[in-house]
Amino acid sequence: MSVRLQIEATRGSARTGKLITPHGEVETPVFMPVGTLGSVKGVSQDVLEELGVEILLANTYHLFLRPGVETVRKMGGLHRFMSWDRAILTDSGGFQVFSLTDLRKVSDEGVAFRSHLDGSPHFLSPEKAMEVQIGLGADIIMAFDECTEYPADGQRARASMELTLRWAERCKKYFEEHKREVPWGGSALRRRPCGSGATPRLDGAEPRPHAQSLFGIVQGGMDRELRRESADRTIDIGFPGYAIGGLSVGEPRELTRDIVESTLEHLPSDQPRYLMGVGTPEEIAYYAQSGIDMMDCVLPTRAARHGLLFTSEGKLSIKQARYAQDESALDPACDCRVCQRYSRAYLRHLYAANELLAQVLNTVHNLHYYLATMRTVRTWIRAGRAPATGVPRM
Amino acid sequence: MSVRLQIEATRGSARTGKLITPHGEVETPVFMPVGTLGSVKGVSQDVLEELGVEILLANTYHLFLRPGVETVRKMGGLHRFMSWDRAILTDSGGFQVFSLTDLRKVSDEGVAFRSHLDGSPHFLSPEKAMEVQIGLGADIIMAFDECTEYPADGQRARASMELTLRWAERCKKYFEEHKREVPWGGSALRRRPCGSGATPRLDGAEPRPHAQSLFGIVQGGMDRELRRESADRTIDIGFPGYAIGGLSVGEPRELTRDIVESTLEHLPSDQPRYLMGVGTPEEIAYYAQSGIDMMDCVLPTRAARHGLLFTSEGKLSIKQARYAQDESALDPACDCRVCQRYSRAYLRHLYAANELLAQVLNTVHNLHYYLATMRTVRTWIRAGRAPATGVPRM
Repeated sequence: MSVRLQIEATRGSARTGKLITPHGEVETPVFMPVGTLGSVKGVSQDVLEELGVEILLANTYHLFLRPGVETVRKMGGLHRFMSWDRAILTDSGGFQVFSLTDLRKVSDEGVAFRSHLDGSPHFLSPEKAMEVQIGLGADIIMAFDECTEYPADGQRARASMELTLRWAERCKKYFEEHKREVPWGGSALRRRPCGSGATPRLDGAEPRPHAQSLFGIVQGGMDRELRRESADRTIDIGFPGYAIGGLSVGEPRELTRDIVESTLEHLPSDQPRYLMGVGTPEEIAYYAQSGIDMMDCVLPTRAARHGLLFTSEGKLSIKQARYAQDESALDPACDCRVCQRYSRAYLRHLYAANELLAQVLNTVHNLHYYLATMRTVRTWIRAGRAPATGVPRM
Repeated sequence: MSVRLQIEATRGSARTGKLITPHGEVETPVFMPVGTLGSVKGVSQDVLEELGVEILLANTYHLFLRPGVETVRKMGGLHRFMSWDRAILTDSGGFQVFSLTDLRKVSDEGVAFRSHLDGSPHFLSPEKAMEVQIGLGADIIMAFDECTEYPADGQRARASMELTLRWAERCKKYFEEHKREVPWGGSALRRRPCGSGATPRLDGAEPRPHAQSLFGIVQGGMDRELRRESADRTIDIGFPGYAIGGLSVGEPRELTRDIVESTLEHLPSDQPRYLMGVGTPEEIAYYAQSGIDMMDCVLPTRAARHGLLFTSEGKLSIKQARYAQDESALDPACDCRVCQRYSRAYLRHLYAANELLAQVLNTVHNLHYYLATMRTVRTWIRAGRAPATGVPRM
């Protein structure tokens, strides 16, 4: 049994509900913080729980290199390895290896690449990406796709889409044959990760899914017709959820919006829809109101480490001298533990003095802001009212 | 009214009790974690509270340069600036400026030095060190002393001790004339720092002290007779507490022990005794059992950031490959949040991958280990029994 989306309210094309996973329920639409190497940089798992994070994204490429899938598998999978009892999604590694422009070679078989760490040679194919993701054991894993570059001409976009479709079939075939090998398969799921404080949340009526789920990815460049074809043919292969990939790769924002909206029309309305790598607070609020259920982005965490903070009054660069003696909270409208306790002056001092705590506190605030934004959107969908204050407008 | 030591039990020369400060009570003997720039690197204030930290040490030299005393003073003092409602002690800056060997010039008036950050020229005198520490507003502040280098010949050690004594008189004079200028003086003390969760703990009977306290520092190099003279003449000047300075500067450990023990004999038994810059877990346990009430050291926090962890089974370097697939807790005998939740394999991965969380979690564990060591020693003194397991032996 795969993950399933339990829709509880809709408003236009937007919907809110629960994604039921082997590691708990996830309120949707959801923003998934990025924990590249099995850690959201600087934030301990208990703080993530307190923030209300119900699903994390981890990067297969990075974990494949360090600590390696065999280590994670032997430790019982990523949940147990990082002591995180809630849901996890892994990407396929495709996006990262395609980003290694000078270090990779693509063939129909897969992608040969060199590690960005030490130049060591590696190979990822659809089958290998499945093997690795089964070993990591996330609740949701992603098909190994080719992220079409931008710009790409029609011929190139079609060829890339066809490659992704062939790979999707191979991914599904390998996954179906090997999914029982997940490290927490069978009774292992009932063994709680050591010391986790999270309460398993089970529906009274229906049992939790007890296996990983593989999502397909729609490509097709910036061509609406190719996107439709990619969606139709990916759905024909058949997955329990679908992602929209290949966006936020340098194209204008209006084009992203256009492609997302036209692709959404072709995705099954009763299954989860995941927009990959998006985005700003305005974008996640907008796409959640357009019918997207899941999003992820490094922006809140990466920006935090550079002192860029999201607030109800807009972006704020904490490094600025104007905050040196500012006693007010970072965001007076925010109820996160950082805004409730510390002043802008203190946060500015920590950042200027290059204190570790700056990165920790800034990340906690930005994640809270993103999660609160999604909470507000969910409330709005459920209530059928216009967005309350607090939802950024795009 | 100054801080005072309320001794509740003794065992030989060791004693346990409470140090009553304007910002709460501190169980003694106490280890004070170092928060150089107004932050214990990587650890948020709520975690410090949860660890049971009752007093922090902050460094005047570093805060003097960044963010500067005027900023901290305007923000209401260091407690309010960093949102820390419990006790704080600041050093005088003397130790740091003397460490700037090539960047400082000592005269009877004070020390001219250049910032290690940008080479800008500064001057600290006894009066200036008091002015700065009054502006920072710690509960306990330290006299501006000369930390005699090791080795030093008899003439040099005496000259240095005499300088420290002259400076001690000037510190006391300035402090007595200006101590009312502390930013939280008078009613400000009753205004709680924003968002602090700490509960003020007041004795039912006696009111909390409402002013800063200035401690004197005993110097005298490695000469027991000079140490005696320094102690006597510092006591003649008169302070509410006394520190032993100028140790852990490169001398053999047996010599440190000898000087500490001989100096302790000359310090008033009813006042707090503070051994500066010490030490390893074995040393803090040993000196607490010798009659020292307060200690501080960067070792637990600095070592943590380098992957060196203190456990009930000895030191452990988490970077070692032998821990890559070790599912056990860092210290199976430890009840800290890190040992309760994460495996050595995960901590080793975080460290090897240079993840921020490694520094955060390692620091939390090491601080817990130091604080637990002191809790065990306090229990031992109170119970009149031999140290339970868990107290490192020196």
